[in-house]
Amino acid sequence: MPVQNDAEIEITAYRNVPEMARGMIKDIRLRWALEEIDQPYRVRLIDGIFEDKADDYYADQPFGQVPVLKEADLTMFESGAILIHIGESDERLLPKNPVGRGRALSWLIAALNSVEPPIEAMVAVKYGGEGDWKEPALAAMRPYPQKKLARLSQALGEKEWLDGSFSIADIAMVDVLRKATALIGPHPNLVAYVERGTSRPAFKRAMEAHLHDCAVKEPQSA
Amino acid sequence: MPVQNDAEIEITAYRNVPEMARGMIKDIRLRWALEEIDQPYRVRLIDGIFEDKADDYYADQPFGQVPVLKEADLTMFESGAILIHIGESDERLLPKNPVGRGRALSWLIAALNSVEPPIEAMVAVKYGGEGDWKEPALAAMRPYPQKKLARLSQALGEKEWLDGSFSIADIAMVDVLRKATALIGPHPNLVAYVERGTSRPAFKRAMEAHLHDCAVKEPQSA
Repeated sequence: MPVQNDAEIEITAYRNVPEMARGMIKDIRLRWALEEIDQPYRVRLIDGIFEDKADDYYADQPFGQVPVLKEADLTMFESGAILIHIGESDERLLPKNPVGRGRALSWLIAALNSVEPPIEAMVAVKYGGEGDWKEPALAAMRPYPQKKLARLSQALGEKEWLDGSFSIADIAMVDVLRKATALIGPHPNLVAYVERGTSRPAFKRAMEAHLHDCAVKEPQSA
Repeated sequence: MPVQNDAEIEITAYRNVPEMARGMIKDIRLRWALEEIDQPYRVRLIDGIFEDKADDYYADQPFGQVPVLKEADLTMFESGAILIHIGESDERLLPKNPVGRGRALSWLIAALNSVEPPIEAMVAVKYGGEGDWKEPALAAMRPYPQKKLARLSQALGEKEWLDGSFSIADIAMVDVLRKATALIGPHPNLVAYVERGTSRPAFKRAMEAHLHDCAVKEPQSA
């Protein structure tokens, strides 16, 4: 199991997470990548998923989110950037040949900047207050993710992974899509792709460790 | 001037762009990066900014957007991924030392996955139909970008660029922020940062070439 208290790599994750948010936080992407390559990591648990953080946390993560990765004198934030860093340590996650690498980076950014944003925007509106405006707003927004997902489904076709072998792009894309069950429903190949990703033993171990930490109650020193 | 018809690097851009969208399209990020390092490129102009593209374009860009970059046997899509590729060719855009590189990648992904999405979501709702629901929906959404921008302003402080010297992260962040004039208004340091970025000669040349291509009327072979 890659979680090891004396590991060189440290990531941050939340404890005391309300049930509805468990399983949804982006430290999972890092845990999954690290599990895929059997790279040990330790976890620094922090409080306050929806609240402001302790002042010194913003020095590590300007937006107060998780995850942060620390490794020797390097501090990184943003799960997508950290996936690139982890991927560069092991060809099983990111090809070293320029063409394969370029394709994987293209698909990684597609997950983060083309597919995830219109899905997260709907989530933000869904949980962003109540009123008669909400349903018509969601209806007006829905074509954006729908169009992206239709194109994604077409690009994936019958392929196992986005481009050749499994990569950090699949970690990001599967993590984005698994939270959008209703939207991917009309595309059986996307449903099967998510099932394929989340069936990987590394994902299962990552999720188990994530859920364990979410449920931790005692505050520890951040 | 980096636009050269026999250049090895090819990017795609739109012609026949309606006036409201000119200056807003993401090929600017690539042109800007290439101008910064004086790297020649040629442009393949395509039609239909808001319409479906010719079928073969989806093989290059699964979502039918611009830009695509072609260089020898490599085809990449997503401006953020292509910025990494261009950055890796020249230290003036992406440090080679692991700490500087990790910081620049963190900020690049912050621009693409934390700052841009809540801004673009508001744009999508603003132009996504009419109805009584629109103003309350925008009011409910506004705190998301506002919170990110307040944190960004705090992190930037009095620094010239996001982290040390100018990098691809600044190209992405300035390009995101310059489209959100009203939202950055309350943060004079963000306004000054955008001004600093868009005053660079490389940005000006990139914008000029972009606007020239937007206005091209005659269809050429895609």
